[in-house]
Amino acid sequence: MIINRSIKKVIKVGNIAIGGKNPVVIQSMVKAEAADVSRVLKQITELSNAGCQIVRLAIKDTGDACAFKRIKKQTSLPLVADIHFDYRLALMAVDCGADKIRLNPGNIYKKKEIKEVVSALKSAKIPLRIGLNSGSVRDFSSRKIGMPDKLVKSALAYIKIVEDFKFRDIIISLKASNVLDTVLAYRKIAKLCDYPLHLGVTATGAPYSGAIKSSIALGALLLEGIGDTIRVSLTDNPVQEVYAAKAILEALRLRKFGPEIISCPTCGRCEVNLVKLVSDFEKEVSSLKLKPIKVALMGCVVNGPGEAKEADIGIAFGKKDGLLFKNGKAVRKVPFSGCRDILMKELKK
Amino acid sequence: MIINRSIKKVIKVGNIAIGGKNPVVIQSMVKAEAADVSRVLKQITELSNAGCQIVRLAIKDTGDACAFKRIKKQTSLPLVADIHFDYRLALMAVDCGADKIRLNPGNIYKKKEIKEVVSALKSAKIPLRIGLNSGSVRDFSSRKIGMPDKLVKSALAYIKIVEDFKFRDIIISLKASNVLDTVLAYRKIAKLCDYPLHLGVTATGAPYSGAIKSSIALGALLLEGIGDTIRVSLTDNPVQEVYAAKAILEALRLRKFGPEIISCPTCGRCEVNLVKLVSDFEKEVSSLKLKPIKVALMGCVVNGPGEAKEADIGIAFGKKDGLLFKNGKAVRKVPFSGCRDILMKELKK
Repeated sequence: MIINRSIKKVIKVGNIAIGGKNPVVIQSMVKAEAADVSRVLKQITELSNAGCQIVRLAIKDTGDACAFKRIKKQTSLPLVADIHFDYRLALMAVDCGADKIRLNPGNIYKKKEIKEVVSALKSAKIPLRIGLNSGSVRDFSSRKIGMPDKLVKSALAYIKIVEDFKFRDIIISLKASNVLDTVLAYRKIAKLCDYPLHLGVTATGAPYSGAIKSSIALGALLLEGIGDTIRVSLTDNPVQEVYAAKAILEALRLRKFGPEIISCPTCGRCEVNLVKLVSDFEKEVSSLKLKPIKVALMGCVVNGPGEAKEADIGIAFGKKDGLLFKNGKAVRKVPFSGCRDILMKELKK
Repeated sequence: MIINRSIKKVIKVGNIAIGGKNPVVIQSMVKAEAADVSRVLKQITELSNAGCQIVRLAIKDTGDACAFKRIKKQTSLPLVADIHFDYRLALMAVDCGADKIRLNPGNIYKKKEIKEVVSALKSAKIPLRIGLNSGSVRDFSSRKIGMPDKLVKSALAYIKIVEDFKFRDIIISLKASNVLDTVLAYRKIAKLCDYPLHLGVTATGAPYSGAIKSSIALGALLLEGIGDTIRVSLTDNPVQEVYAAKAILEALRLRKFGPEIISCPTCGRCEVNLVKLVSDFEKEVSSLKLKPIKVALMGCVVNGPGEAKEADIGIAFGKKDGLLFKNGKAVRKVPFSGCRDILMKELKK
């Protein structure tokens, strides 16, 4: 099965193209205050090293906007200015070199203000993200409607205003704080417009369950071909957001970042410490730039040989020894104690 | 949005009903060797305390089968015997009081053997899981077919054999080691038979990406209404499998286990240490038996008041203070330093 992606308009953010047939782009957000330039730059470097392609930064006052300018000069990663409440901060951010502006229709909605921002975006030739959140969406319907419809209707109304100013350099996001509303909102908007979609669940809660919420919502949408860029929001270090995003895209075979590890959950049949081996091996592998090959580390003879054969390199463990497979063929017995070295040697070939 | 579940036959495993309109059941597997009875019992207790409803145990020889009998006598959780290669172990496990037998069609496939096992299951009135795995599925097709079809065809052939012996007390699983094959296989089998489906991805690799793979595959299927019981396979402590399973079911609103926490990812706007607050709060809350209410902990005024209003209890933080919301209404200002105590007090009401 290959995912049949819904093809949207291509929008460029700095040197990164979003939409069309471009690979799904990974974004995250700096969590330090913009004014703390050195901390922001450190976080951007960490995000970039982890695989983040676009970084967003909250601009909450003119001080932040000035800091944004200094930050922009010292980083090559495309920078997005996150603006709420005050449209003049968006104008400043454009002047400071932002690669994209995110406006929240929930708190910047006056036509006159939108017009001024759009005019600045046009001159600077940078795109706009119309970024809605369930926590700030405006209720402009007279009758009670559900959250997905609220988000979609609000987005469509805003798109209409922006399009009336002859601007189509747009990316859309409709983040709800639960999986079901998020999935429904994106499914609806995907059918109604051709702008690329920035996927995310907002306010996901504690990190582990947050990663699970995001995986389900983003995973389900991406499986349906919906989504051009993703941000996994976690109440955690932003680097963790990038790891989660990479794992989601890898699981769906939309992107490849390094070796894919297949390993059994272990059970009473397993006679080696596979949990530790896999955990250590993953840490070692993730810090290296390696080809996206498939490595199977299996604890017994039930599914071990089968998965090991399917992988590029695999070991199916028995009592103490394992049987090494390469490209579908059994090569030789290897001892458990030395198998990590053997794997690393094979990987580096 | 409420998930429209596909209604399957109801199968009972001990006192737990799987299928029909029953809530999705959480399973896991003991990772200790059966012969190590005290370790197995300890793991079963931990799994049960975590929320696991059915536990599986590998029976790899007659010694394990004897141990199974002793274990069964000392636990109230339904126990499933995991059998491979030797059908006589299944017969022994039935005698030892197993609540379900799992057979793998990849390594127990002779009609005569299946007939003997089915006959024992009938007498004992316990069900059979026909559990296929991509690592051990038999290739009985002359032409090349993809993994999902291999799993589905193999399952259907086995079901036919078992049904010919007038036995329909069946649960099916078709686990592949990647998300796409797993989703496709289950989608197909769901249309072709009315037996309840046990969902899982096999050999998921390192714990974090494994949880993400499982979340996507199980999440996408459950969203489509497919799946009656789940097991999240992780190369990790089995208790973690139960936490992941609970988070998946909660995210989809298929089950509720305790307070749902909504919290923002934080950004440059957040002036309190929300990451630590949420992490500590979740730990404290998860050890208590509390009602499944919604708690929002938000770092700023952008989406904070909105999410806090939607929750049963919420705090939207500003500089140092937060605004406490209860049932959609702002109640009073609370200091960051004392907010954990306030939250716990409200939760325990």
